Amino acid sequence: MASSIANLMNSPFPFKTHRQKRPRIVAQSQSGLLEETCKPEFRFDDYLASKAVVVNEALDAAIPLRHPARIHESMRYSLLAGGKRVRPILSIASCELVGGDGTLALPVACAVEMVHTMSLIHDDLPCMDDDALRRGRPTNHVAFGEATAVLAGDALLALAFQHVADHALRGGRGWTERATRAVAELGAAVGSEGLVAGQIVDLESEGREVGLDALEYIHVNKTSKLLEVAAVCGAIYGGARAEEVERVREYARCVGLLFQVVDDILDVTRTSEELGKTAGKDLASDKATYPKLMGLERARGFAGELLARAEVELRWFDARRSAPLLHLARYIAHRQN
Amino acid sequence: MASSIANLMNSPFPFKTHRQKRPRIVAQSQSGLLEETCKPEFRFDDYLASKAVVVNEALDAAIPLRHPARIHESMRYSLLAGGKRVRPILSIASCELVGGDGTLALPVACAVEMVHTMSLIHDDLPCMDDDALRRGRPTNHVAFGEATAVLAGDALLALAFQHVADHALRGGRGWTERATRAVAELGAAVGSEGLVAGQIVDLESEGREVGLDALEYIHVNKTSKLLEVAAVCGAIYGGARAEEVERVREYARCVGLLFQVVDDILDVTRTSEELGKTAGKDLASDKATYPKLMGLERARGFAGELLARAEVELRWFDARRSAPLLHLARYIAHRQN
Repeated sequence: MASSIANLMNSPFPFKTHRQKRPRIVAQSQSGLLEETCKPEFRFDDYLASKAVVVNEALDAAIPLRHPARIHESMRYSLLAGGKRVRPILSIASCELVGGDGTLALPVACAVEMVHTMSLIHDDLPCMDDDALRRGRPTNHVAFGEATAVLAGDALLALAFQHVADHALRGGRGWTERATRAVAELGAAVGSEGLVAGQIVDLESEGREVGLDALEYIHVNKTSKLLEVAAVCGAIYGGARAEEVERVREYARCVGLLFQVVDDILDVTRTSEELGKTAGKDLASDKATYPKLMGLERARGFAGELLARAEVELRWFDARRSAPLLHLARYIAHRQN
Repeated sequence: MASSIANLMNSPFPFKTHRQKRPRIVAQSQSGLLEETCKPEFRFDDYLASKAVVVNEALDAAIPLRHPARIHESMRYSLLAGGKRVRPILSIASCELVGGDGTLALPVACAVEMVHTMSLIHDDLPCMDDDALRRGRPTNHVAFGEATAVLAGDALLALAFQHVADHALRGGRGWTERATRAVAELGAAVGSEGLVAGQIVDLESEGREVGLDALEYIHVNKTSKLLEVAAVCGAIYGGARAEEVERVREYARCVGLLFQVVDDILDVTRTSEELGKTAGKDLASDKATYPKLMGLERARGFAGELLARAEVELRWFDARRSAPLLHLARYIAHRQN
């Protein structure tokens, strides 16, 4: 049930950018602006690695091991299990995009990762996707039992909001307005018209014919909305104006959907060996995918269009500041696995 | 696993106050102030009934039935299942205690009830207490399936925070500071040192010897903290000063624990017929209770002490405004079932 984008984003493989090896282009940029704005001196891999260190330290500090030990062990087990921290880094990069110091975005960056981890723990439960392994380790309920896994998810979700609020109260009056906006955004992204909506429609779709609208609904809610809220809250914490927030939101929406479309394309165009998983399995299992519903060429065109739309939003910002987000979008469009 | 106080608070029986029938006194007031401050003209039953109507309307409006229908049906099924709305009414009464219009507290009142409902849905799951009935109806997972029940709880928890934040953003700058304080309080009350902590220690205690400290830890976290946050957030939304907030907090802590102590006393002193459930079952099942751990007379003394402490906090406020909270504490101390 967990979407392919979520799986890929949590895979143990580090990001590989197009600098390392010139890949066949899956999605063609339509703006053609990239070479001007992405100077070769910007080292995307280093950027990701350095931000991940900061995020991991903040997450570790957010849940000290205290009484009752079992629940905190369970929360830390899943939250600190690694992963590339795409969502928190999106918060930090969006904060920097609008001129803020990236560390300002850490409270919301951590909150988004806590919410993401909660959704993984609950999606893995036997009554949902019944997954025994994640990132090569036993899933939370296998390691700690189902009751603790449900409670660890609940506690992580509550902590996400509390973490944002606690930080704002320590920061003084100016922060409570930003925190309240972040809480509203985060709540909407998780709830019955966000993550939960995507999961329930996905569950209902099992074994049924799924059209393009339903496919997009599932992906937007299960994947894009949390990426969107990560970027939007980062921008809010960087002091973005309303128009800047909406441009960041549109960028993140496009990137979230782009990831899924490219994932579907790769599934039918690459061999299993290149992909590192069973290629064509979505097609074989009769699962709805973009190439299946709109044809491979139109799916490629759609991916190119999404990348172009993401790039257009970034052109509005300072080129140096937008480099990380531009590289992220291009990486997603051009990745080979 | 669900505590007795939670069961009693959710029973379909309406509150009966000491006005209706003079009961044998379980806990003796030590302040002796009651007859002065609780004028007979204050109709406690009417107060509860009228506030419950307002709360139910607000909860109904907070979750309109929209797409995806199944998740919203599931959330509404449990949230609108009735109950006396003790927690939201505690918010409203605490708001009025400090001079605020009670309707100001509705956003936090609804949020607390959403959190409470989430905890009931998740506690009832097969991997937790495995309860098939609640308030005489099938539990959420029996009616909608386990996956939907887990997701409905998650969505209610997210909505609780979002509801508070959305209201504050509509209300303007002055509200974001109160909302942020409410989010911090609510998060702490639910999380790994609140509701979740109580439930996990309760689960761990099954079949083990439990001392007085562990018993109090479970009750404080599973029951008192959410009552405390209901009262505290109501006071904050009423514009309470810091000292007033702390007095309301202490009142609610005492009342929460009082409820549990009286519940334990009634279990050993009343017959099954009077109690409406199997009397002495806590003793028979070897479950830790206050009378068992400290003896019946000391348990009665402890209940009287808690009532007196609750009353002392209320003396600090206007007598007319404190009448509902005073009646609530006395009802809890003197109830016969």
